[in-house]
Amino acid sequence: MLLEMISTGEEVLAGQIVDTNAAWFSDSMMNLGVELARRSTVGDRIDDLVALFLERSRHADLILVNGGLGPTSDDLSAEAAARAAGVALVEHDGWRRHLQDWFQRRGRQMPAINLKQCLIPATAELVDNPQGSAPGFRLQINRAWFFFTPGVPAEFKPMVTDHFVPFLSRLRGAAPPTRLCKLLTFGHGESTLAESIVRLPVPAGITLGYRPSAPHVEIKVFARGEEAIASQPAYLAALQELLGAAVVSTRFPSLAEEVHHTLIAQGASLSLAESCSGGMLASLLVDFAGSSAYLRHSIVSYANAAKTALLQVTPATLERHGAVSLETALAMAAATRTLGDSDYALAITGIAGPEGGSEAKPVGTVAIALCDSRSRCAQLVRLANRSRNLVRTMSCAVALDMLRRRLLGMEPIVAYPFIPASEVLREDAH
Amino acid sequence: MLLEMISTGEEVLAGQIVDTNAAWFSDSMMNLGVELARRSTVGDRIDDLVALFLERSRHADLILVNGGLGPTSDDLSAEAAARAAGVALVEHDGWRRHLQDWFQRRGRQMPAINLKQCLIPATAELVDNPQGSAPGFRLQINRAWFFFTPGVPAEFKPMVTDHFVPFLSRLRGAAPPTRLCKLLTFGHGESTLAESIVRLPVPAGITLGYRPSAPHVEIKVFARGEEAIASQPAYLAALQELLGAAVVSTRFPSLAEEVHHTLIAQGASLSLAESCSGGMLASLLVDFAGSSAYLRHSIVSYANAAKTALLQVTPATLERHGAVSLETALAMAAATRTLGDSDYALAITGIAGPEGGSEAKPVGTVAIALCDSRSRCAQLVRLANRSRNLVRTMSCAVALDMLRRRLLGMEPIVAYPFIPASEVLREDAH
Repeated sequence: MLLEMISTGEEVLAGQIVDTNAAWFSDSMMNLGVELARRSTVGDRIDDLVALFLERSRHADLILVNGGLGPTSDDLSAEAAARAAGVALVEHDGWRRHLQDWFQRRGRQMPAINLKQCLIPATAELVDNPQGSAPGFRLQINRAWFFFTPGVPAEFKPMVTDHFVPFLSRLRGAAPPTRLCKLLTFGHGESTLAESIVRLPVPAGITLGYRPSAPHVEIKVFARGEEAIASQPAYLAALQELLGAAVVSTRFPSLAEEVHHTLIAQGASLSLAESCSGGMLASLLVDFAGSSAYLRHSIVSYANAAKTALLQVTPATLERHGAVSLETALAMAAATRTLGDSDYALAITGIAGPEGGSEAKPVGTVAIALCDSRSRCAQLVRLANRSRNLVRTMSCAVALDMLRRRLLGMEPIVAYPFIPASEVLREDAH
Repeated sequence: MLLEMISTGEEVLAGQIVDTNAAWFSDSMMNLGVELARRSTVGDRIDDLVALFLERSRHADLILVNGGLGPTSDDLSAEAAARAAGVALVEHDGWRRHLQDWFQRRGRQMPAINLKQCLIPATAELVDNPQGSAPGFRLQINRAWFFFTPGVPAEFKPMVTDHFVPFLSRLRGAAPPTRLCKLLTFGHGESTLAESIVRLPVPAGITLGYRPSAPHVEIKVFARGEEAIASQPAYLAALQELLGAAVVSTRFPSLAEEVHHTLIAQGASLSLAESCSGGMLASLLVDFAGSSAYLRHSIVSYANAAKTALLQVTPATLERHGAVSLETALAMAAATRTLGDSDYALAITGIAGPEGGSEAKPVGTVAIALCDSRSRCAQLVRLANRSRNLVRTMSCAVALDMLRRRLLGMEPIVAYPFIPASEVLREDAH
C-alpha cells in the first residue's frame, strides 16, 4: 500500500514552523511497519493545493493531509479537496450544532469566522475532532483516499491515533508483522559506528538505520516478518557487544531519560551544580514527570561570585586552577552534594563560547565532575568547533553518561572517539 | 522563478529527525523575498529518488536538494542525479586530493568508505564544502537547475549562504525589493490576534502571516515593492497600537532574547529561583552569548527542602500557603536576589504535572514573582490542559515578560487573554 503525506500551510513551507507533525506522523507509521513513500509540502495557494491533490491522487493509495482547516482566509484545504474531487462544499449540520454548543457552554457566541469550519466536500465523511473546532474528513479522489487533519498538534495526534490508524488498517488488510528496536549511542560519529557495524552480517529481513541527533546517534534495527523478528534479539546482542561503551540506552531515546529512570529505580538522589550548561542539565531531567523523586536542586552558579558564595569554591581554587578546571568542578560537585544531602552530584563548568577562550583553555573546554559518598572523578573535555548550544548539550550528555555508568557499577569515565578528554582525575573512598 | 526543495533520507521521511534544514532554508528564502513553491521529501530508494528528480525537473527552475551525500550505502543522491541526467558518475580528482589531505593532516588514512564522496555526475560542477567530507554540486536536468547539499546542518547552512544564494541571484536577475518585519506576540491566540488585525486595512503590496510557535505567535509583515516598503512603518505602528501589550518584541524572535539584550543595554543584573521550570529559565538566557554580563545564578530548588535550605523559604510559609503560592514565590525571589546581590530577581514555582495537582491548585497552576530594590509583585497563573513541557515553557515566558515590562518602566503584570491569572499581588517600596 502506497502511503503519502501532504503538509499544507505557508508557515510550514516558508519554514516559519518546523514540521514536527510530519516527523511525528512518519515515526508513528514506521513503528507500525508502514513506510511513507513521499511527503509533499505546499503553501496556501488554492491552485497549488488542487494541482498537488490531483497529481498525488493518481499515485498513492492513501494520503494524509495536514493543516489548512482553520477558520481564517488562508485555510483552504476543504475547498481545494472539493475542487479536486469535483464536488461542492456543503455545510455539515452536525458539526455546526456541535460548534454552537461548544461556544455556548463557554458562555460565548460562535464567531462568524468559525462557520467556515462546518463546510466539507459533499462526498466526504466527517472525522471527529474532540480537541478543537476544525473537523477532519476523508474522501476518495481518483485512486487515492485522502484523510484531512488539522495542523494543531494536540488535535492532529489523537485524530491519527483514534481514526487514521484504524482506517489504514482496514485498507491495508493483513501485513507481515514488524518490530523496531533502537540502540542509543553517544560519543561516536555516524561513520565510525557504520564502519564497525558493517563487519557484522545482517540477518535476512532486518534493515539498519542511523539517526544522528545531537548529542546522540540512534541505531534502528527494523525486522520485517516472523523469521527476522526471531533473529532480532541475537543480532541486537551482537551489536551491543561490538559497540561496547558507545551504547548508552536500549530503552529510551535520550541519556536524560535513561538516567531519570535508573535513578528512580535505584531510589537514589541527585544534586547538580552548573555553570556553562546554565540550568540545561536540570531542565533535561525535569522534562520527565517524576523527577522530583530524585532531584534535590541545581545551583546554576553562572558568575564566579556565585561559585564562591553558593558553592564554597574558594577564591584560591578559582585563582590557582581557574573556573574551568578539574579542581573547581570537583569543588562544585562536592559542595552541591553536601547542600542537597544527596547520593550523587554532578557539576559542569566550561567555556561555551564564542568568547572567553584562551590558548590553554580554548572555547569548548569543559570540566565535568561526579561525586558520591565513596568516590569522585572529573574530566576535562575538548568540544572544539561546536556552537555554544552544542557545547552545552554535549557537556550535559557527558555528565549524564558518567552518572549512568556509575549507577550501573561501571567506571564512570570512558574514552569517546568524538570527544577528546585531555585530563582525567579519579579518587576513591576519601 | 519557480523554486522547490527536495529533502532526502529515510531518517527525514520516517520522522527520525525533524527537518530543521528545510525550515531554516525556507525561512532564509522568505527573508530574501523568494517563495518556495513546493517541498518534497523522499527516502533512500534509488528509484524513488530518480523518479522524483525527473518529475520535478519538468516543473521547477531551481531545486535545492538536501541530504544523501554521506559515505554510507544509503547515501544515493549523487547516483540518482547521474541517472536522472543520463550521465555517468565520475571521480572528481580535486576533491579526492582534498579529502586525502584532510585526513593526512589529522594523522589518519582516508577510510575507503569516503572514496564514494569523490564521485559526482559527469556534467555537474562541484560546490565547495569547507566543513565536511561531502562536496556539493550542481547540474541541469531538463528545465531545472539542481543544487545538491549535504544534510549536516553545519555544512548545509554555509553552503546555502556562500554558494546557493549567489547562484540563485544570478538566475533570478532583477527582482522587486522586499522587506520582512516581524512582531512577536505573547499571551494571545492566533485567532484572537487575527480577529483584531482584520479590522485594520492592509496597504497594497503588504501580506500578513502568522507563525504560532509556543509560547509565542509571530506576526510577519511582508512588503514587496518600493511603495509597500514605504507604507510598512506606518502600518507596523498601527498594528502595534492595536495589539498593545500583546507585542513583546519587534526585534527578536523570543522573549528570552529580548530580555537578554534589554538587560545588557541597561547594565542590570539578574538572579533566578526556579522550581517547576527546573533550570529552563536560566538555560533560555544562557543560550545567548554574553549572558554572563547580567546573570548571577539560578537556584533550581526543585525539592521543598531545597526551598528552605537554599532560599530560606520558612517551613511556616510552605505549610501555610503551599509551595505553589504567591508568598512562596515572593520569598524565593527575595532570597535569590539577596544571595546574588542583583538588581532584579525572578522566581517560578508551580505544578507542571501530570501528577501533583489538587482541586484548589490543579496541574498548570504556577506562581511567578519579580522583585527589585523598590517593588515586588507576583501572580498565580492557570495553565490548564497543557503538557508538562508547555506549562514550564509558558511559565518562563510569563516571568520574562514581567521582567521585560519592568525594565521598560511598565506595570509588570498584564492580563493575557490566553493565560488566566487568578491571584495578583503588587507591592511598592517596602
